[in-house]
Amino acid sequence: MSSIGIVSPQAMRFAEPLRLQGGGALAEYTLVYETYGTLNADKSNAVLVCHALNASHHVAGTYEGDPKSTGWWNNMVGPGKPLDTDRFFVIGVNNLGSCFGSTGPMHLNPATGKPYGASFPVVTVEDWVAAQARLADALGIVQFAAVMGGSLGGMQALAWSIMFPDRLRHCVVIASTPKLSAQNIAFNDVARQAILSDPDYRGGDFYAHGVVPKNGLRVARMVGHITYLSNDDMAEKFGRKLRNAAENNDYKFDFGIDFEIESYLRYQGDKFSEYFDANTYLLITKALDYFDPAREFGGSLTRALAGTKADFFVASFTTDWRFSPERSREIVEALVCNRRRVTYAEIDAPHGHDAFLLEDQRYMNMVRAYYQRIWEAMPVKGQA
Amino acid sequence: MSSIGIVSPQAMRFAEPLRLQGGGALAEYTLVYETYGTLNADKSNAVLVCHALNASHHVAGTYEGDPKSTGWWNNMVGPGKPLDTDRFFVIGVNNLGSCFGSTGPMHLNPATGKPYGASFPVVTVEDWVAAQARLADALGIVQFAAVMGGSLGGMQALAWSIMFPDRLRHCVVIASTPKLSAQNIAFNDVARQAILSDPDYRGGDFYAHGVVPKNGLRVARMVGHITYLSNDDMAEKFGRKLRNAAENNDYKFDFGIDFEIESYLRYQGDKFSEYFDANTYLLITKALDYFDPAREFGGSLTRALAGTKADFFVASFTTDWRFSPERSREIVEALVCNRRRVTYAEIDAPHGHDAFLLEDQRYMNMVRAYYQRIWEAMPVKGQA
Repeated sequence: MSSIGIVSPQAMRFAEPLRLQGGGALAEYTLVYETYGTLNADKSNAVLVCHALNASHHVAGTYEGDPKSTGWWNNMVGPGKPLDTDRFFVIGVNNLGSCFGSTGPMHLNPATGKPYGASFPVVTVEDWVAAQARLADALGIVQFAAVMGGSLGGMQALAWSIMFPDRLRHCVVIASTPKLSAQNIAFNDVARQAILSDPDYRGGDFYAHGVVPKNGLRVARMVGHITYLSNDDMAEKFGRKLRNAAENNDYKFDFGIDFEIESYLRYQGDKFSEYFDANTYLLITKALDYFDPAREFGGSLTRALAGTKADFFVASFTTDWRFSPERSREIVEALVCNRRRVTYAEIDAPHGHDAFLLEDQRYMNMVRAYYQRIWEAMPVKGQA
Repeated sequence: MSSIGIVSPQAMRFAEPLRLQGGGALAEYTLVYETYGTLNADKSNAVLVCHALNASHHVAGTYEGDPKSTGWWNNMVGPGKPLDTDRFFVIGVNNLGSCFGSTGPMHLNPATGKPYGASFPVVTVEDWVAAQARLADALGIVQFAAVMGGSLGGMQALAWSIMFPDRLRHCVVIASTPKLSAQNIAFNDVARQAILSDPDYRGGDFYAHGVVPKNGLRVARMVGHITYLSNDDMAEKFGRKLRNAAENNDYKFDFGIDFEIESYLRYQGDKFSEYFDANTYLLITKALDYFDPAREFGGSLTRALAGTKADFFVASFTTDWRFSPERSREIVEALVCNRRRVTYAEIDAPHGHDAFLLEDQRYMNMVRAYYQRIWEAMPVKGQA
């Protein structure tokens, strides 16, 4: 088992307009993507990995000259890893509206010659999937061996199974949900309000003013980050430990930092506000809020999933309170009612929602076994 | 059972400096308070009610000419109510640093002639209790029949039992905790960062600039409010209901309001930002973070509570994820280990942390029964 090594992103330009769920269209756009492994002769070994809120097409490997630039799912994807690039041809694609290369709010709107800013259309999970399907077309991939994602990425995998039932044999949905709860939406709206009310947001037009709504992004990330960690894990890692406790084990009696958890969260917020785009954050939280495939079926997830044809692997983590196991069980129930083949793993892991990104042996073993099963069922196995 | 009717606050000035836990002292200060019922001849029927984050001395009744100005625990305190003012003399007192009348950051610092602003000392639960004890002295109350509070108010009741073991016969601690968890502190720090990074905060000196950090307060309240409600209750009340669903049952595809929960939270945030003081919010969250009576006993709550003499009534609510039942059970365990008389009620209620303020028949019945027991044990029962 070794890392995938040096990788480099590619870009594909699409000149045909993409009609969007919210009305209107993106006249032209670019998708940035990476691939790992080799597409086999009958193009049956492709796996699409969909990313979550703050990730990108850079799933695995590192960039030339930047050994710290490891992909976000490097523990999952690579030679001999659970999603084994010696067997599968893996594609990571950056979604529209992102700030990591694909067309987004910081890019020039060809109609105005200025950055889109807040006028970038509010794109949905389904819009992303439609764009991903065009990339698959361009790469000549008629049917994926699997489409896979965690969290918001899992929503995309689920949308693939509904929108393009013939284009994936397996759907791998990890730490996800068929729709956000009121509490999930509430946390997203707090984050949005923090950004929108930052004077440096400038109505989304901050690029032209040479400023960035860092304070808003920082608070948005802090509140988001709390929901990614489990209560227990936070207690274990931080508890009430004071920062610099060795030097001076007392409270400061001011509004600076007393506790390690404050230091950690502010650091996460600061770091995030330096690389993430505020308009992208707003767009992605809206895509999360809007995802609800059961909506056009009178709220019936079973009916929403009735046309799916893939086999499913669904996994959740016991301490995930953002998208709790209960939410994954809703997906499983709807699939069972549709007589789909569904494998469900509820993994006892301490790390909350973030567990889907972390090294957990039982989790990794199960994903590995599932891909082994996918591999064994493939008529032509060799890579090209 | 009737309401307590028209009430009016009183103010008491203290000229003797109050030494503070964080060092230094408040040279002089005023406490605003209200009383309900009548103190009996031997002054044995007094009950002190301590308030939580955004409440005040105005526990019950209404103010002259303002029929909507109902006290925050009006369902609990009044003639024939669980804490029956036909029997008990109830005192509500506004804490130092608050924005409802007692000396706080918006008042003039006698040393400078300017508002304290961010220079108001960071006061602790123990400082509040010390100030409350002086008010009790001034009112001639040597020993309370009970000191009672919910949430942060429960911390004050607990601190009373430790700091002044002979001055209360009963300690009533509802929906509280012996100390905040890392997650609790994290949410408080998000709220603080939202306020501190609002340009209108002006380093705490916003009074002089004629502005208020409304955006920061608004985000702070929104995130706080999420933690007061249970996930289930939020799902039940709001779910994914769209605002104005009857008119136009579709998403808006912008960053305005789509969901009822967004509308509700923003309304709560707006309302709060119009009446609450930003410096007070910072102070009160710090008092919450700092409370940890076990700290000076090597983390042993049992040792911290070893000197208490009161009987205890501790109550928690099953769906409270802010201060979960587990936290109340820690208090109960430490009291049991100290061979204290402790009654513990874990109440199956849907409303999360806010349940302590709401009408729940089982909850109210148990508090009523406990005060009946207090009453029956009193040698002199009549009011003066």
